[in-house]
Amino acid sequence: MAACIFCKIIKGEIPCFKLVETEKTLAFLDINPLSRGHALVIPKHHGEKLLDIPDDHLADILPIAKKLAKAVGTENYNILQNNGRLAHQEVDHIPKPNATEGLGVGWPQQKTDMDQLKALFEDIKSRI
Amino acid sequence: MAACIFCKIIKGEIPCFKLVETEKTLAFLDINPLSRGHALVIPKHHGEKLLDIPDDHLADILPIAKKLAKAVGTENYNILQNNGRLAHQEVDHIPKPNATEGLGVGWPQQKTDMDQLKALFEDIKSRI
Repeated sequence: MAACIFCKIIKGEIPCFKLVETEKTLAFLDINPLSRGHALVIPKHHGEKLLDIPDDHLADILPIAKKLAKAVGTENYNILQNNGRLAHQEVDHIPKPNATEGLGVGWPQQKTDMDQLKALFEDIKSRI
Repeated sequence: MAACIFCKIIKGEIPCFKLVETEKTLAFLDINPLSRGHALVIPKHHGEKLLDIPDDHLADILPIAKKLAKAVGTENYNILQNNGRLAHQEVDHIPKPNATEGLGVGWPQQKTDMDQLKALFEDIKSRI
């Protein structure tokens, strides 16, 4: 994992504005923030996507995001985990102070076909 | 919490396409999906925002989102938790099959002023 920027931050080879550190997780300020208080919460376990992170590391993340939300003191905020981006990035905590700053969310709802939805449900359910 | 639609779903008073249920969490398909496999993962603890949910309930959520991502079998997906929406809604798991379906993400980065960022860091850090 020598090339992973998040591993380097965890090892202290790249500095960060460290807010919270536990055995499994590191939280720090994003240096290209979408809004004041935009922070990254990353598992110390190197992995590309959610599926690559052990459950005990995942379980550690949201309580830390909650702690950050409280400390930042923002009323509206988004917690986001994107899969298909940089390796190891797990959760962003992004305050939403107004309509233009912070995370933009597009919500293109689809028409609901209940029969199709039921078939999909059976399909997914069978794989769990 | 008599009026809360999520409490009603948890109690079984409103039906849902239930995918995963644990002591603390319920996961089911969104009936107005942004994309195939769009699911909701909600804590059974009633609360409006992240700050209102106990840590042990939060810890249960991401491992379930991971299980869903695996079962849906999508390569790209977003995990989103919005604060400022319906009471009790906690995490969405939304597959991202292509550019138009799924969650739209606006990422309006701000210019970085390292001195301001450092001052903000000290401020937030002091509250943790």
